[in-house]
Amino acid sequence: MRFIQEFRIPEIIFGRGSIEQVGYCAQRVGAEKVFLVTDPGILKAGWIEAALPFLKREGIHFEIWQELTENPKDFEVEQATRAYLDSQCDAIVAIGGGSPIDVAKAVAVMATHPGTIHDYEGVDKITNPLPPMIMVPSTAGSGADITQFAVIVDSQRSVKMTIVSKSLVPDISITDPLILTTKDPQLTANTGMDVLAHAIEAYVSLAANFLTDSYSLTAIRLISSYLGKSVSSKTNLEAKDAMAKASLLAAIAASNALIGAVHALAHQVGGRFNLPHGMANAILLPHVMEYNFPACIERLADIGEALGQSVDGSNLRQRAKGAIEAVRTLAREVDIAENFTRAGCLYSEEAMNLLSANAAKDACLITNPRDAGIKDIREIFSRAFSRSSVKEGEVHGPQAKDNE
Amino acid sequence: MRFIQEFRIPEIIFGRGSIEQVGYCAQRVGAEKVFLVTDPGILKAGWIEAALPFLKREGIHFEIWQELTENPKDFEVEQATRAYLDSQCDAIVAIGGGSPIDVAKAVAVMATHPGTIHDYEGVDKITNPLPPMIMVPSTAGSGADITQFAVIVDSQRSVKMTIVSKSLVPDISITDPLILTTKDPQLTANTGMDVLAHAIEAYVSLAANFLTDSYSLTAIRLISSYLGKSVSSKTNLEAKDAMAKASLLAAIAASNALIGAVHALAHQVGGRFNLPHGMANAILLPHVMEYNFPACIERLADIGEALGQSVDGSNLRQRAKGAIEAVRTLAREVDIAENFTRAGCLYSEEAMNLLSANAAKDACLITNPRDAGIKDIREIFSRAFSRSSVKEGEVHGPQAKDNE
Ligand SMILES: [Fe+2]
Ligand SMILES: [Fe+2]
Repeated sequence: MRFIQEFRIPEIIFGRGSIEQVGYCAQRVGAEKVFLVTDPGILKAGWIEAALPFLKREGIHFEIWQELTENPKDFEVEQATRAYLDSQCDAIVAIGGGSPIDVAKAVAVMATHPGTIHDYEGVDKITNPLPPMIMVPSTAGSGADITQFAVIVDSQRSVKMTIVSKSLVPDISITDPLILTTKDPQLTANTGMDVLAHAIEAYVSLAANFLTDSYSLTAIRLISSYLGKSVSSKTNLEAKDAMAKASLLAAIAASNALIGAVHALAHQVGGRFNLPHGMANAILLPHVMEYNFPACIERLADIGEALGQSVDGSNLRQRAKGAIEAVRTLAREVDIAENFTRAGCLYSEEAMNLLSANAAKDACLITNPRDAGIKDIREIFSRAFSRSSVKEGEVHGPQAKDNE
Repeated sequence: MRFIQEFRIPEIIFGRGSIEQVGYCAQRVGAEKVFLVTDPGILKAGWIEAALPFLKREGIHFEIWQELTENPKDFEVEQATRAYLDSQCDAIVAIGGGSPIDVAKAVAVMATHPGTIHDYEGVDKITNPLPPMIMVPSTAGSGADITQFAVIVDSQRSVKMTIVSKSLVPDISITDPLILTTKDPQLTANTGMDVLAHAIEAYVSLAANFLTDSYSLTAIRLISSYLGKSVSSKTNLEAKDAMAKASLLAAIAASNALIGAVHALAHQVGGRFNLPHGMANAILLPHVMEYNFPACIERLADIGEALGQSVDGSNLRQRAKGAIEAVRTLAREVDIAENFTRAGCLYSEEAMNLLSANAAKDACLITNPRDAGIKDIREIFSRAFSRSSVKEGEVHGPQAKDNE
């Protein structure tokens, strides 16, 4: 546990129809004119049109900005910042997925700091106060409306820059389950397993604390009860509400306790094989839990309990092992591929070496409960590629790895 | 459950020695000169002297204000506001107990709003943004550094005015367990039982939600494990840390889920008999739990579990009853008086009628899980006065009440 524990979250507003609060919130943070960042999809779906009357009702002026792409780029941030400054806005509202929210955060930084967004990559580079930010997420899972992170692509180097600062925690997050887009079962499964990874990584993190722990476990309990139901039905609103709550709780925990090796490795696989983030996490999660086992048996046992493993007559180690099995079972039930090979990724020694070397540099590893060097990461990747395929007689079984 | 759930807390910094963060925090909220509200006791104890170097290190100027009394008055707020405006400060820092924190909040309101502090009594009267506020509490229990409440005495009417607004939630709360003053066992027991009342009332509140529930239960578990240890020893730092954490968690829950009949009734007893707030709550708590029983059996059963009641072989009602017994046992273990008579309060029919009529108007009743009219409140007061005294042959036994 660190000497000093810090905990920061936005003001949270949650409930069906809560988008109507957006104007009142803007007024409350002192805004007269808001810079409204969104994306063409949200605009087309009519959510901006739906939100504007609530701004007008409070006499709030606005400027709409939608010039951004799926993985927002540095030059898009520059354009948006110029528009923000020209428009004389005094607050920023984002309505949409992770991309508009990340752009909104980057504009807040660049409107109040010199240089370019590249100067703020890394931890705690932001020194001046930012304009007020209000976020209305349209997808449950990313948690960008809650976290202290913003991710922007450096278009020259073609890499993702992560900007980390408590100042990036928005002022207000408004989650309206009615805006959460109806997703197909595969996407629901992937994002749900991502939320599970946030909760489990935050709970075993070296920076976990008394304010994050109960949220991590509550999120895990909700996922255990509702992920299957949510994947099974687009219209089960009870399940959608529960997963939206789990996503919020896990994002609060992950933003403050930080995460670990699952995300460090998933970042690499996602980039190399264009695999959805949640699916990469889901495949890696049980392997990283096995790797972390000796470092956090008690914590894994708690996770096992939260995942519904019976406590009666089982000892600590059995409950901890039970947590890993429960994660595998849950992933199987929502049709997540068993391993990276099954998910369509092509194994090669060179790729594994490169991914392992890059993953070893990822900032997420700092709070992983067990130190992991390149060789350890290489081993986890191998298992995540071929562990189950052994049964099917493929080449790269864990035995081969263990002896290499 | 309400249609829309709102959740707002300060940024929280927690840890031994964390007072050193005060300058960095002031800089981070954009302050150049802070208005430092404190009380003579804290000043004498040397905590202001200890904090100043951390402000100076960041180049933050300051103006110290200590002209306030135990229950801060409206005219004290006026004086302090004039001093704040004259000093050209741009942020407010309070270091001390509930009184300086309440004054700091009231100055923030009056520095940005017309009229007098009386105009802002009640719910949601604050319309303009407030200057940044950073609170460093010197006592664990009141939670004023976390909550959306400020309490100021109307010196003309001699009543306490409660100002309620999300805007009163400070920006940053810094809890340094090293500043938490060493208290005698009785005070530790009283404030600890007040924290238990916050957690239990928030958990059974009609406004409880998924963000407050796990904090309420975690606080109850900590109190169950550590209150006895904290009362037993002034130097058990593990117990002090645990109770400081419980206090924070319960304050977060109570500020957002609000509280109930225990506090509505305790406010009256406290005023009339000059009984410590925590002791009044401790005596009333089991009686209100019995009254609320039919409205929240499941919730009381959860509380029973959190208080360490065995789940095996007991049904829901038994676990719920067990919660009430566990509260009585805990209170007995830390030497809280069994009833108001034992605590030195003098029972009289007129007093009971007056207190009941006033309690029925208290805003805390709105979120109590069971409606309570004057007659119901009268009955709860009677039980809290004499329930246990029946065994000793006193006049006002519950039988007498039941038949009246
Ligand atoms: Fe993730
Ligand atoms: Fe209280």
